[in-house]
Amino acid sequence: MQRVVYLDHAATTPVHPKALEAMLPFFSESYGNPSSIYAIAREARKALDGARESVAGILGCKPNEVIFTSGGTESDNTAIKGVAFAAKSGGNHIITSSTEHHAVLHTCQFMEKFGFEVTYLPVDRFGMVDPADVERAITDKTVLVTIMTANNEVGTINPIADIAKVIKNKNKHIVFHTDAVQAAGSVDIAVDHLGVDMLSLSAHKFYGPKGIGVLYVRRATPFLPQQQGGGQERNRRAGTESVATIVGMAKALEIAATGREEYNRHCQRLRDRLIESILSRIERSYLNGHPTQRLANNANLSFEYVEGESILLNLDMLGIACSSGSACTSASLEPSHVLMAMGVPVEIAHGSLRLTVGSKTTDEDVDYVLSHLPGIIQKLRAMSPLAEVR
Amino acid sequence: MQRVVYLDHAATTPVHPKALEAMLPFFSESYGNPSSIYAIAREARKALDGARESVAGILGCKPNEVIFTSGGTESDNTAIKGVAFAAKSGGNHIITSSTEHHAVLHTCQFMEKFGFEVTYLPVDRFGMVDPADVERAITDKTVLVTIMTANNEVGTINPIADIAKVIKNKNKHIVFHTDAVQAAGSVDIAVDHLGVDMLSLSAHKFYGPKGIGVLYVRRATPFLPQQQGGGQERNRRAGTESVATIVGMAKALEIAATGREEYNRHCQRLRDRLIESILSRIERSYLNGHPTQRLANNANLSFEYVEGESILLNLDMLGIACSSGSACTSASLEPSHVLMAMGVPVEIAHGSLRLTVGSKTTDEDVDYVLSHLPGIIQKLRAMSPLAEVR
Repeated sequence: MQRVVYLDHAATTPVHPKALEAMLPFFSESYGNPSSIYAIAREARKALDGARESVAGILGCKPNEVIFTSGGTESDNTAIKGVAFAAKSGGNHIITSSTEHHAVLHTCQFMEKFGFEVTYLPVDRFGMVDPADVERAITDKTVLVTIMTANNEVGTINPIADIAKVIKNKNKHIVFHTDAVQAAGSVDIAVDHLGVDMLSLSAHKFYGPKGIGVLYVRRATPFLPQQQGGGQERNRRAGTESVATIVGMAKALEIAATGREEYNRHCQRLRDRLIESILSRIERSYLNGHPTQRLANNANLSFEYVEGESILLNLDMLGIACSSGSACTSASLEPSHVLMAMGVPVEIAHGSLRLTVGSKTTDEDVDYVLSHLPGIIQKLRAMSPLAEVR
Repeated sequence: MQRVVYLDHAATTPVHPKALEAMLPFFSESYGNPSSIYAIAREARKALDGARESVAGILGCKPNEVIFTSGGTESDNTAIKGVAFAAKSGGNHIITSSTEHHAVLHTCQFMEKFGFEVTYLPVDRFGMVDPADVERAITDKTVLVTIMTANNEVGTINPIADIAKVIKNKNKHIVFHTDAVQAAGSVDIAVDHLGVDMLSLSAHKFYGPKGIGVLYVRRATPFLPQQQGGGQERNRRAGTESVATIVGMAKALEIAATGREEYNRHCQRLRDRLIESILSRIERSYLNGHPTQRLANNANLSFEYVEGESILLNLDMLGIACSSGSACTSASLEPSHVLMAMGVPVEIAHGSLRLTVGSKTTDEDVDYVLSHLPGIIQKLRAMSPLAEVR
């Protein structure tokens, strides 16, 4: 059997065995609807309450500030729409950054249909948002700022706590949301440390199941629920709770929070081996994103005169799984909007490769990549008309 | 250990063992993000495509008309908002019925905030919508009609195909959506037989997992996507696909479709034993819903001068799990909006009990209920001041 080296943990992660184990009883045994009142439903309700308390403990918030959603995209949509529609009488201005995930960017664009004006802040060449830019963008119509904790493509970590300070100093009624989907598991996401009013999580990014997420909503935040129906989630998100995956998510988050330092140490060492070896062994290769303020598991590099897609296909044939950017846009042939916003030239942006290591990644996996990647780049450049011209 | 008799299959069902088995590989083995392009992601993509084809086969539609959602509530919300916002330039009138699930009713009320006018049609004393009422309610501003296939509380099956005919005869551009959440598994949901343009399903009602559902959208239906982000589901529902639960849902639906006749025969026999025995053994008891046009597994009865909640608590102590109406509203003390719309007097509506049998329900389960229920009703009536007055 071919060796498989999975280096796309930013796209998704396998469910942790303990998280899967925690989920299993809630499919066919304790399957009750938590809104019902009899014994088998109370088991489900108890598990749901326990999961909520566990998540709240890690976020450092109250359990009733945790809303379970169907994932990071729903959380981002609900945060933006929920605040914007609720606060519309107070203003119609939203501030975000140009390197957000499409779940934020496209939702902001959606709000423009409803009379909202959106400022898309620039980032520096490392992909970082400057708190001073946020401050300057705030007007008396601003109701919401949404800036991601860490970028999903290049791994750059934004100064969220500093951004929170400038927002709240200017006007404490402006709601501050952060998409922490890619950051969770690696970065401290305690909401008071970050200073945010709302925060989005997606379980499958931290070894939990797909299709489940969290939206933290600080008490007293203006919020119009976006999914109408039954009274679940204290009337803020209707729909029968997905008990099993919620339990799995809470367990995965607990494991991630407990083991965060060790996980980061492990990932960072492998990440740095990848980055340093590639930069030194392959000429005209560049690191994308911030050199130090970056996620411990993210190595995003560009290779001049080479198409990222071609690298991926060659690596896939060797059993190496990675991506050229976001999994959510991998069908697109456009260069990454993140690299474009960072001012990376198109010919370099097109040759980007994202390698994201994980808890099971080994030195042998890194060796395997390093033994093949330089040859692949060399081969592709030999075939590239652009490289020849130069 | 106490005997457990689960008679609340309308609230939720256990995941079928074969559905669970089908799901398991996609948590920790074939865990790839289906949007990615390498081998482990292609396994997930293949499973996702297979599930979509399977669901489409049962609905009798094309695979690209199937959108996977996080459940029935999201499907209903997305159908109503998606059509209403897309068709707004053509009209602002929505028609629904007064006995819909809150996922439809509350979404319609939400749309009233956005300038829509909603007609809530009456039902007859059996809870059925009259196609002639639909026809009369249509105006030149009507863009959407949403009528449930079968009622979740009383089990009444609406004449959906007849309603479709009157709508399309009047104006073929009016979109017809049906919430088939409670009907699936028991009723033919082939979209061309029903004549609908949109249809909602929720997996956990037909022995699939919670947190996953389907929205069928007929080709060329006006539709504004309601969850923005990546390009998943052909740009109609962003968010990483919940591969495992989608696979589980498809398997459960396939099992339900294949075994539908046998399932209905089994359920109907037990349901009729419950209904006939209760009506004959307990005086001043009434059947709610239609006597024949009702879901095979639904027995909804009322007992004059008795609180439904009190019956539930007494049954729960005996290990019998059932409900007084919808699980989604079980925390509410209001009488059922469905029974109210049917014209059931408040004092009878308050004493309602919904017993919904399932594939594993046995004659012994029915005997157990029948051996205890008359005594419980008698005891509760002896304590009721209302009963005494009479």
